[in-house]
Amino acid sequence: MKVLVTGAGGFIGAQLVALLGARGRIGDRPIDALALADRRLVYDVPEGALMLEGDLASAPLLQRVADYRPDVIFHLAAVPGGAAEADYALGRRVNLDATLALFEQLAARDKPPVVVYASSIAVYGADLPEVVTPETPLHPPLTYGAHKLACEILLADFSRRGLLDGRSVRLPGIVARPREPSGLASAFMSDLLHALRAGERFTCPVSPQATAWWMSAPCCVENLVHAAAMDVTQADPSRAWPLPVLRLSIEQVIETCATLHGDDRRQLVTFEPNEKLEAVFGRYPRLDDESARALGLQDDGSAQALVVRALAP
Amino acid sequence: MKVLVTGAGGFIGAQLVALLGARGRIGDRPIDALALADRRLVYDVPEGALMLEGDLASAPLLQRVADYRPDVIFHLAAVPGGAAEADYALGRRVNLDATLALFEQLAARDKPPVVVYASSIAVYGADLPEVVTPETPLHPPLTYGAHKLACEILLADFSRRGLLDGRSVRLPGIVARPREPSGLASAFMSDLLHALRAGERFTCPVSPQATAWWMSAPCCVENLVHAAAMDVTQADPSRAWPLPVLRLSIEQVIETCATLHGDDRRQLVTFEPNEKLEAVFGRYPRLDDESARALGLQDDGSAQALVVRALAP
Repeated sequence: MKVLVTGAGGFIGAQLVALLGARGRIGDRPIDALALADRRLVYDVPEGALMLEGDLASAPLLQRVADYRPDVIFHLAAVPGGAAEADYALGRRVNLDATLALFEQLAARDKPPVVVYASSIAVYGADLPEVVTPETPLHPPLTYGAHKLACEILLADFSRRGLLDGRSVRLPGIVARPREPSGLASAFMSDLLHALRAGERFTCPVSPQATAWWMSAPCCVENLVHAAAMDVTQADPSRAWPLPVLRLSIEQVIETCATLHGDDRRQLVTFEPNEKLEAVFGRYPRLDDESARALGLQDDGSAQALVVRALAP
Repeated sequence: MKVLVTGAGGFIGAQLVALLGARGRIGDRPIDALALADRRLVYDVPEGALMLEGDLASAPLLQRVADYRPDVIFHLAAVPGGAAEADYALGRRVNLDATLALFEQLAARDKPPVVVYASSIAVYGADLPEVVTPETPLHPPLTYGAHKLACEILLADFSRRGLLDGRSVRLPGIVARPREPSGLASAFMSDLLHALRAGERFTCPVSPQATAWWMSAPCCVENLVHAAAMDVTQADPSRAWPLPVLRLSIEQVIETCATLHGDDRRQLVTFEPNEKLEAVFGRYPRLDDESARALGLQDDGSAQALVVRALAP
């Protein structure tokens, strides 16, 4: 089968490309061709892979995608939440317009391609109930989340019409991103792990009790590949699932780092909670992710496994 | 205040314009100017009103809207469900692109204009639970509903950002539309009322037990005007409400028509249920519309009042 990864140059895209290359298959079907779409790659294009360089929102790149005729698409390209909130036009162009244009370009009635869409827990919103279930109303607290949710709905509609075989997976906070400006409001989650491994002081912008939904990047890309292969014929028409998560407080994460890297880590963190960050990223309640687990999607297993995998080279 | 009605030439638009003209105010504020946007009007432009003729998705018309600077916008312009399903590109252009372009054009940080957005019960979907509540997951069964839902989410996001003061109201089956091709899959609801008043035979495409959510056009436009004036400062962030409805079976509607127009009406209807229509328009369950009623939105009161008002000249 022919596979396309958009946002292949990004943090998750790079790890997904590496996994696809190492495994050579999705489910029981071998990968015959791999294409990578992004503005640029920060790593070498894997041998035999096709590089589709450029702006995903542009007609020439969309035409090249159509000519390539992929069977499976991982659509990861996005302007992250903080950056999209600061620049509405850019966020709209990439997160809404380019995504819909891609869906339209890929739509095919003969054999609908599988589209794994990297949605986000940013669709849920603040003021969540004690347990988030499939019935919890979605109130995205940022334009990023509103666009992700709109695209989930549009992908479900293409799937209903038999033109795409869509699977939206809502990514939680994925760690550990590189220590560089990312435009992600949740970057502190990764920065904390890096700092504690390195034995550096860290000022945490949320309280010790702040709870978030965590997943390591290796676990995330395993889930993305699984999402392409899983059987969704009986799935609900939303075609959208939260990835199963570990719900951990900052305190628990610090304890885990101390166990792994040394007891002195506990003293390295000071807290300067930012009210707005705490409201969005510090109050994630329990998540009823049974529907995702039933399809074989998984969390990291334990806080320790999460931290180890998150910091794996 | 300055008021704009898009889709002013449509069935609901025309009645809304008439009501605004007759009343001269919205809540306790007088209407100082009225602008009507549509491709054409089938009635005379009311005295003193500004006609914005053209395609809402076009830059020139959007610029004229921006120059007019309305305080209250009723956004009714849409390609109906059946027509949008048959012509995806047209539906996308009007129901998604033009709507978002209008929101962007109207967005203003100094004094966000009130946008009453005519959404639809088409956002709910088939296979509904016994009672539809604000927690019922939304699975639009047509592209029309998917686009309406996407625009609800986008309007809520503009409202969150303080750029618009959005109020999405989900319109049920509004009767009685003129007896002409409308592109609406639910046209049979209106056609039934017309036929029974006229004493004509009618072949009903859903069963006698088919239940739908009904509202007369006069009740609908009263609700739209109320939606512009109602206080939503405490409202939930979705800024979307179903209009309160009468849930009636076809049987109940025929009985009501017989009471009003004569007992012979019962014999005029034969049934040839269409499975697809029945699934979408014949199985509407109970609707928990408390949040809408609490804001002062209303149904017709009784089946008899519904039929009388629906057929009022």
